[in-house]
Amino acid sequence: MVHRARASHLRMASGMDHIVEGPEGTVTASESREDLARVTVSTELAPGQTLRIVKFIAYGWSSRRSQASLRDQVEASLAAARRSGWDGLRSGQRDYLADFWARADVELEGDQALQQAVRFATFQVLQAGARAEKRAIPAKGLTGNGYDGHSFWDMDMYTLPVLTYVAPAAARDALCWRHSTMDLAAERARELGLAGATFPWRTIRGQECSGYWPAGTAAFHVNAGIGDAVRRYLNATDDEEFERGPGLELLVETARLWRSVGHHDAEGGFRIDGVTGPDEYTALVDNNVYTNHMAARNLRVAADIAVRHPHRAADLDVDQEEIASWRDAADAVVIPYDHELGVTAQSDSFTRYRQWDFEGTPPDHYPLMLNYPYYLLYTSQVIKQADLVMALYLFGDCFDADQKARDFDYYERVTVRDSSLSASIQAIVAAEVGHPDLAYDYLGETAFIDLRDLAFNTKDGLHLASLSGAWLVAVAGFGGMRDHGDGLAFSPRLPARLARLAFRLVFRGRRLLVDIDHEGVRYELLDGEPLEFEHDGETVRVTRDDTVHRPLPPVRHRPAPPQPAHRSPDWRHREA
Amino acid sequence: MVHRARASHLRMASGMDHIVEGPEGTVTASESREDLARVTVSTELAPGQTLRIVKFIAYGWSSRRSQASLRDQVEASLAAARRSGWDGLRSGQRDYLADFWARADVELEGDQALQQAVRFATFQVLQAGARAEKRAIPAKGLTGNGYDGHSFWDMDMYTLPVLTYVAPAAARDALCWRHSTMDLAAERARELGLAGATFPWRTIRGQECSGYWPAGTAAFHVNAGIGDAVRRYLNATDDEEFERGPGLELLVETARLWRSVGHHDAEGGFRIDGVTGPDEYTALVDNNVYTNHMAARNLRVAADIAVRHPHRAADLDVDQEEIASWRDAADAVVIPYDHELGVTAQSDSFTRYRQWDFEGTPPDHYPLMLNYPYYLLYTSQVIKQADLVMALYLFGDCFDADQKARDFDYYERVTVRDSSLSASIQAIVAAEVGHPDLAYDYLGETAFIDLRDLAFNTKDGLHLASLSGAWLVAVAGFGGMRDHGDGLAFSPRLPARLARLAFRLVFRGRRLLVDIDHEGVRYELLDGEPLEFEHDGETVRVTRDDTVHRPLPPVRHRPAPPQPAHRSPDWRHREA
Repeated sequence: MVHRARASHLRMASGMDHIVEGPEGTVTASESREDLARVTVSTELAPGQTLRIVKFIAYGWSSRRSQASLRDQVEASLAAARRSGWDGLRSGQRDYLADFWARADVELEGDQALQQAVRFATFQVLQAGARAEKRAIPAKGLTGNGYDGHSFWDMDMYTLPVLTYVAPAAARDALCWRHSTMDLAAERARELGLAGATFPWRTIRGQECSGYWPAGTAAFHVNAGIGDAVRRYLNATDDEEFERGPGLELLVETARLWRSVGHHDAEGGFRIDGVTGPDEYTALVDNNVYTNHMAARNLRVAADIAVRHPHRAADLDVDQEEIASWRDAADAVVIPYDHELGVTAQSDSFTRYRQWDFEGTPPDHYPLMLNYPYYLLYTSQVIKQADLVMALYLFGDCFDADQKARDFDYYERVTVRDSSLSASIQAIVAAEVGHPDLAYDYLGETAFIDLRDLAFNTKDGLHLASLSGAWLVAVAGFGGMRDHGDGLAFSPRLPARLARLAFRLVFRGRRLLVDIDHEGVRYELLDGEPLEFEHDGETVRVTRDDTVHRPLPPVRHRPAPPQPAHRSPDWRHREA
Repeated sequence: MVHRARASHLRMASGMDHIVEGPEGTVTASESREDLARVTVSTELAPGQTLRIVKFIAYGWSSRRSQASLRDQVEASLAAARRSGWDGLRSGQRDYLADFWARADVELEGDQALQQAVRFATFQVLQAGARAEKRAIPAKGLTGNGYDGHSFWDMDMYTLPVLTYVAPAAARDALCWRHSTMDLAAERARELGLAGATFPWRTIRGQECSGYWPAGTAAFHVNAGIGDAVRRYLNATDDEEFERGPGLELLVETARLWRSVGHHDAEGGFRIDGVTGPDEYTALVDNNVYTNHMAARNLRVAADIAVRHPHRAADLDVDQEEIASWRDAADAVVIPYDHELGVTAQSDSFTRYRQWDFEGTPPDHYPLMLNYPYYLLYTSQVIKQADLVMALYLFGDCFDADQKARDFDYYERVTVRDSSLSASIQAIVAAEVGHPDLAYDYLGETAFIDLRDLAFNTKDGLHLASLSGAWLVAVAGFGGMRDHGDGLAFSPRLPARLARLAFRLVFRGRRLLVDIDHEGVRYELLDGEPLEFEHDGETVRVTRDDTVHRPLPPVRHRPAPPQPAHRSPDWRHREA
């Protein structure tokens, strides 16, 4: 593989200004000539007198603009800051955050520490996403050196699903960044002998920066993750301009990729062979269920949007035959199933793989990838992170309720959560299939990941996907929100440990509050035009005047399956 | 992966001596002091007078012995050579080769060039094998720098199957070399979390020297190849000492490896997942048929030999339970089959993989691995070299005649022979299933590989496996010899282009001649005790006095399947 990244010369500029207010005639302030950030202030204060120093710092960087232009930008920022003054800046920031929390806050009653953790998590997601401004949102945001600043599929599948409902402009920006790397993705597809665009597994500027095929480019699902992030954003925003523009192009080129990665076999099934799904303890498998369902949806949504914009589609050389071939492939996608066990196979033959000796695996041998050869992991029924279970969440209509419960039970027993991307998805499905208390435990694991350093590596930066997962568990787990069709659907449920859970979100210009306690759920439209959605299969309508109350749907509590030995969610044991 | 090769300091010594015979008083010979290999001889010859120079050169090397000891060895060789003289050395060499040809020669009538090529090939196999002396036989012998002097599985599965019948001591030496690397192989198995011994995919001294897992260690089948070479050697030699010693240990440790690489699934099938078979255009597949059958045989033969030597087996901690577990696994081994197509699948799902566009692949795009991304090769029905077809040869009893014909037909159409290991095996199976003329073409391809530089890289050294294949095609292809059970079986057939084909071999101390023409076959015992074997299913017995004649078994000629576009065996077009 040839790494084609051009050398990138990042330019930076920073500037500082200050205001010193103290007793007249007694204050001297001198700036250091060598170090512009150093100011020496000296004064003599009588009792009761005050010295107030306000420091304004501006920082700018670019890999494109000139040093002079950067410096101008920094100077302008400083001038504006000085004009606003400290109070102006503080109230601007406060308004910005108040507005954010009005759209994004999750309230939990019954667990103060968890309440704080979920808010911390939500704030970090905003922090990472809001100012990325058409650049990648890295796995660690800007909080550490972990993963070398690279972005992965979790941007599209964990962070954007939050931003879409709490800061949609940031979600749009991130998707525009994906779109801006289209040429590189198309070039990469050509290099692999494929059609459309192959977006990178890990990247900063759009080039594939993973050199390890089995857990890099072979995880083609990142492409469908981008398509799904586009679909979700369009569903949630009515952003017609984005749909006709970057959205359509992203969907078309990823659909073309899938059409060429997969193929029809002799029986007419559409297979996707030799790829890696989300679970990195299997690799280069055939017909990973998550990947195949994601690809099918990518193909269908591309077809729908192309039909809706025939002229734009024609600009991209999409014709009726191509659209039909996408739909045919999507309808024929192969989903492996083990009829003996009555379980969906994560990929072909997965349920026939070797069993892992969990009892014989010492607790300090986790994460397994640091202690066992990959060959054993790859050929065993041991799962690093939700994969088939993620499909249960994202493609709920493709599995009946009993199947979901059986599949969750089967995979829960072999999933070790050596990835911080796992707990949130397991929580969402656990809540759905009748284990709300297990979901609650997993919410703790995903929300406290950094506050309690549960993965022992917070020093390398925050786990943005895990933190995104906290909001997702509240909304999709306990709120039971599904956004995979046209519109929104809810099916609230609450764990015993929480007295109340409420969350907000924005959807097509409306702001909705969902307020759940053990008595029932209240849907309140805080802003905007009347909104219809589903509550437990029933279509309900809220307006500014009509708040809807409903009892909670009955939960069929099931005995929760055990996790592998030593792998139960034990975040409470680590409380400070 | 940690490469643990110790630095190897190879010591070398060479020496030279010479005899000059010319007219008395006119010859002066002076040795260069700087360059011991340079001698200057001057004389003046009258018409009719002769000058005769005999140069003796000795060469020795070792990575263990001292320089002084090497020098002594070289001096001794020179002294011995001087004592024997040119005529003595020449007649010694002539006797050695006459003896060899009496055991090894293949006679072809009807194609002089091919006759020469087969003899050239057989001589090169001897040359590479006879003096390896308990060291590896490299893929290129000592003829070039190709593959950096490394040995691969073709030593065990191509070269030793020839040496076993024409120079059994050389086969024994090679297997002793494998045995001498047992500690490294055991260490490697531990590194991979496996039991027994994992022999390296490529090596000089026993360490794994391949860093590319999918076409390196994952090709675990090399281990069963070693087991099979042991089995074949034991079957052909009655070498009790080797059987009780290195043979048993090699079989036990490879059986243990297989028992740990494979596992029983819920239905009781013994699966081997995530491995690579002989065909390097698929990789990391589940249940490769060749590998699974080879593993099963390895397990069974280890069980049989362990039972025969209970005390030695006990020394290796083999008990009845372990032996039973080998037999159970062997009996339960999974062999994937496509019931829709009526074809054995080379590995799970192979027959469902993408079809390759052979018509759209330009002739100059071969070998494909240099022109297409591996991802496309791995997920397509395109085969580099005989794999399932090799299983048809080696496990003939596991497939009925029609199945073999159907399987050969299916795989012939997708096998591109981008490896020089392929043509010989395709020839053997082609001959069996009714395409003797196709077999003849493939014999040419395998025998002329270097004389006509068919792979365009003979400059890097000879293709020893391909050359071994020439003898194998004569014996196993046209002689129909199978040595996979107890004893030998023949089923001769002849292509239209050959008037006669005869070959010799040694088997349990006997020397047998098999002489085939279109009238029939003659089995003649040239040396040794009476011998029983099978001819076309009938048990026959030859003695020094009783030569056996039989008509050729009827051939059910079938229309030969076509090769992929531009990939028919075209060696005749390249004749000098």
